[in-house]
Amino acid sequence: MHTVSIFGVGLIGGSFALALKQAGFQGKIIGVSSPATIAAAHAAGAIDDALPAEQAAALADLIYLAQPISRILDTLPRLDPWVRPEALVTDAGSTKARIVARASETLLRCQFLGGHPLAGKEHRGVEHADPDLFKGRRYVLTPRQERDLRSPAALDFIEWLHRIGAHTLLTTPGQHDAIVAYTSHLPQLTATALAACLAAEFAGELPPVWGPALLDSTRLALSPFDIWRDILETNQAAIDSALASYISHLQRMRERLALADMRQYFEEGAKIAARIRDSG
Amino acid sequence: MHTVSIFGVGLIGGSFALALKQAGFQGKIIGVSSPATIAAAHAAGAIDDALPAEQAAALADLIYLAQPISRILDTLPRLDPWVRPEALVTDAGSTKARIVARASETLLRCQFLGGHPLAGKEHRGVEHADPDLFKGRRYVLTPRQERDLRSPAALDFIEWLHRIGAHTLLTTPGQHDAIVAYTSHLPQLTATALAACLAAEFAGELPPVWGPALLDSTRLALSPFDIWRDILETNQAAIDSALASYISHLQRMRERLALADMRQYFEEGAKIAARIRDSG
Repeated sequence: MHTVSIFGVGLIGGSFALALKQAGFQGKIIGVSSPATIAAAHAAGAIDDALPAEQAAALADLIYLAQPISRILDTLPRLDPWVRPEALVTDAGSTKARIVARASETLLRCQFLGGHPLAGKEHRGVEHADPDLFKGRRYVLTPRQERDLRSPAALDFIEWLHRIGAHTLLTTPGQHDAIVAYTSHLPQLTATALAACLAAEFAGELPPVWGPALLDSTRLALSPFDIWRDILETNQAAIDSALASYISHLQRMRERLALADMRQYFEEGAKIAARIRDSG
Repeated sequence: MHTVSIFGVGLIGGSFALALKQAGFQGKIIGVSSPATIAAAHAAGAIDDALPAEQAAALADLIYLAQPISRILDTLPRLDPWVRPEALVTDAGSTKARIVARASETLLRCQFLGGHPLAGKEHRGVEHADPDLFKGRRYVLTPRQERDLRSPAALDFIEWLHRIGAHTLLTTPGQHDAIVAYTSHLPQLTATALAACLAAEFAGELPPVWGPALLDSTRLALSPFDIWRDILETNQAAIDSALASYISHLQRMRERLALADMRQYFEEGAKIAARIRDSG
């Protein structure tokens, strides 16, 4: 690939650009974003040029959609008349089923391959972009069929993902969304609910009787709603069933607490927490 | 104070000993623990001597109980015949009402002052002891009455707490336990329940589709049950009501999720999570 157009040059889009450059990419990186973001992306050295969406799409071998999910859903139908037939469109949205479905319905003139880098930071924006953001991190790809991975454009993209240090793995869009409902969306909601519960219990003024563990438990609650609104809306059913399952575990935990018989919960919890770290 | 006897020279007891020495304590520190722990405590430079409980208690100006809660509850009644009348007995247990009540009933010949250092580490044992463990951390004291703080032994102990960098604060034993049910015990159970829920959902084999945020959410689930059994048993009613309140927040969250109306939850959660960090 020679020309990469990144739609949404924030933390993920900017980091992808910096990672490509660090890995030796010699082509051109074009940014499509608001004027303020484009200025910041230039300052960060992430992009070589900035163009309106139509021109950026028409020039690109790879179109990388790193916008919020709702913007990706809006962008996809607009791309179709602009893209080159041999181009690849991919995205970095945190839910996949809706995006892949939208691409299937509306992006007909070139290939689409959904993606989700399992990487992030507490701070958003291209000024926090990091060429090593993907290094050693998993990067989920959700092809509609195996051969989606064997086109020249897809092979080229995947090779660059490996060059920037990402570990690619494959799921269906539905599998992806069902899993992240438990591994990402539920953890977010457990932290948000804990923080909201503390706020309600102490009327917003937490007494200073807490230790470092509370920081771990509430870190995710700092996440801005603007990112989560789209995630919650596009994975609502799976998240609801993860919440229901979590609540039923807590209810059984109350019964066990009354019986002073919580060992099994702790041991099972510790076992999978350790396994997560081993596989980290 | 000239002689400090530490019952249970683990992470907390060992760190208290190292912190005293670092802060210039010139007296003698006696350890009361199992032979293996005593050997490790000597190796760590935490103690000057090791004695059986009776002799260690009889010599001490300060008796520092850093055992598990159930052991503290067992030790308190035994101390009474041994202690010097001008000595102070204190403890570092994570719940306070039961311990303070037990001391009131059984420790009659010298003063008792309950304590709870809001400090800790992922790893237990005197080999992880750290002279800076209490530095900048809060240290709750639970006097039965104000004048408990004004005895010569208490004044001396509190001065040493300040010298090792701890920020002391006062609550009643009941207030302490009601607050930590929410700020410490509930966060532990939300993490343990999340890990147990993941283990059940994925039959113990979590697919590798998760990002760094899952590590934050499950870190506390690594905590060993042996510490928590005592905490859960000695604060059961308060923990049960914290769990009930948390569950009702999650249930309301499900309703809000269905209405695509979660902004308020996120904003309230983020506000208190930020406030916790500001007050950190």
